[in-house]
Amino acid sequence: MTQITINEVGMRDGLQSLHSIMPTQAKRQWIDAAYAAGVRHMEVASFVPAKLLPQMADAAEVVAHALTYPDLIVTVLAPNLRGVQDALASGAQRILAPISVSPAHSMANVRRSPLEMVEEFARMCELRDEGGRVGVQMIAGMSTAFGCTRQGAVPLADLCELVRQVMHTGCDLISLADTTGHATPGQVAETIPAVRAIAGAKLRAAHFHDTRGLALANSLVAVQQGIRELDSSLAGLGGCPFAPGASGNAVTEDLLFMLHGMGFDTGIDLAALIQSRSVLQAALPAEPLYGYIARAGLPLGFHAA
Amino acid sequence: MTQITINEVGMRDGLQSLHSIMPTQAKRQWIDAAYAAGVRHMEVASFVPAKLLPQMADAAEVVAHALTYPDLIVTVLAPNLRGVQDALASGAQRILAPISVSPAHSMANVRRSPLEMVEEFARMCELRDEGGRVGVQMIAGMSTAFGCTRQGAVPLADLCELVRQVMHTGCDLISLADTTGHATPGQVAETIPAVRAIAGAKLRAAHFHDTRGLALANSLVAVQQGIRELDSSLAGLGGCPFAPGASGNAVTEDLLFMLHGMGFDTGIDLAALIQSRSVLQAALPAEPLYGYIARAGLPLGFHAA
Repeated sequence: MTQITINEVGMRDGLQSLHSIMPTQAKRQWIDAAYAAGVRHMEVASFVPAKLLPQMADAAEVVAHALTYPDLIVTVLAPNLRGVQDALASGAQRILAPISVSPAHSMANVRRSPLEMVEEFARMCELRDEGGRVGVQMIAGMSTAFGCTRQGAVPLADLCELVRQVMHTGCDLISLADTTGHATPGQVAETIPAVRAIAGAKLRAAHFHDTRGLALANSLVAVQQGIRELDSSLAGLGGCPFAPGASGNAVTEDLLFMLHGMGFDTGIDLAALIQSRSVLQAALPAEPLYGYIARAGLPLGFHAA
Repeated sequence: MTQITINEVGMRDGLQSLHSIMPTQAKRQWIDAAYAAGVRHMEVASFVPAKLLPQMADAAEVVAHALTYPDLIVTVLAPNLRGVQDALASGAQRILAPISVSPAHSMANVRRSPLEMVEEFARMCELRDEGGRVGVQMIAGMSTAFGCTRQGAVPLADLCELVRQVMHTGCDLISLADTTGHATPGQVAETIPAVRAIAGAKLRAAHFHDTRGLALANSLVAVQQGIRELDSSLAGLGGCPFAPGASGNAVTEDLLFMLHGMGFDTGIDLAALIQSRSVLQAALPAEPLYGYIARAGLPLGFHAA
């Protein structure tokens, strides 16, 4: 069976989008429950100033807990050199830097142009090397790779040119992110081979939001195009409180139902993962939980991994 | 541009699943609004006893209204000879008969075994021929083609054998229906070529429910496999009131966003279709309306239709 890596990003991308702040103890429980269900890749925190993202103030503590599981691959986000220092100190095995293709989004998100952010990313990679932490993987997260709320359409040529620049850094992996839910399946099918022609095997992961209901269809096309690592969030956590159901990440449970139904191996026990939603229900009682399979249940006779 | 036919089935499959009964006048308005947005295929009613499905008591009247549009292709459902008599009298151009692959579902739905239903379908086709109405197309709707709530998994071999029998009737078209939302994309990719090997060009349409969030991904795979007619329902209407968001048809608006984003031509103005949800809001105030694109809006710079 072909394996697909599911990178649970709810603790990072999900939680940072909420008004609620999840207590550290609940984050630990979430990590425990996800691990128990078989999840072995998690993006658990952002190293950003706590005054900007109070939801991530406990990042070092959360990473420390995740690292108590020796075979769990822990990813963190860092938007700048300071963040990478903290991320390296935390012991996380992978550091994701957001590199927006859309200049408008890049300025709003990291106050740098896309090219300036690539230069910053190059310095981040050097910092990793200087610290002798060459085992830590540096991931270029190509944000707004398929469109941007501020700019609208994002030309594939712009993405390709930025990826060319990224290839001159110490980048280990490239992830294509549909940050604002613009991607359609045809676009995904066109984009992945174009980026692969530049990045080769470094193009590894994809990250879709369900803003317009296409997270699963886009994930499917990514898999058809050879992508073997997908980001998703338990219960589709995240999104905007002003557009219920409209902006979260791909729902991990629903993604697993699709992939397992197609015969892919994720190593995750879907029924156990569905049960783990109870951690979110208890810790975030005011937040809506999304997802179809948790409501409808597994079909009679379905063999869930 | 490759054309894909969208068959709006909300007036039939959507409305028959609701507790509410939509007034005839509202059905007319819905047909008017869908037509104005460019929809040219609609499944508008079932010819079944009004005591069983009071939502469909005005079937003849609704068909008569739809037929005031000369270029609108009107489909109706008929489960038996009596229904076909009424359907032929109504003037509808296409008659869909539900032929369940799952014996348990077939008995519950039409009180006949699958093979008995194929025999009934053969008689329906003869009735059409005897009436000299050879222009009316008879559609074999292969229900529970991908799984069944009562039976669980439905073997592909059972579907293929039943399609072989259907090919001995006067059948014009075959539609594969995921009646209870069991299908996964891998299954769709395997099923369509297998059925096409038996049915050839008569295999034309597919019908997916979003019970487990896969209606769009399954529709995508169907299109990849050459299917050029898809059923869907405005606002995902239908489904079970006890599982909100869990059981409706594929959402027409979201399906269009996907298909248009992939460069397919449906002839439908997506923005106008989204506006037409107001007919449902007014006529069915107690029913939830589903769909992502209506909430999130079209992306900036997206060329709809």
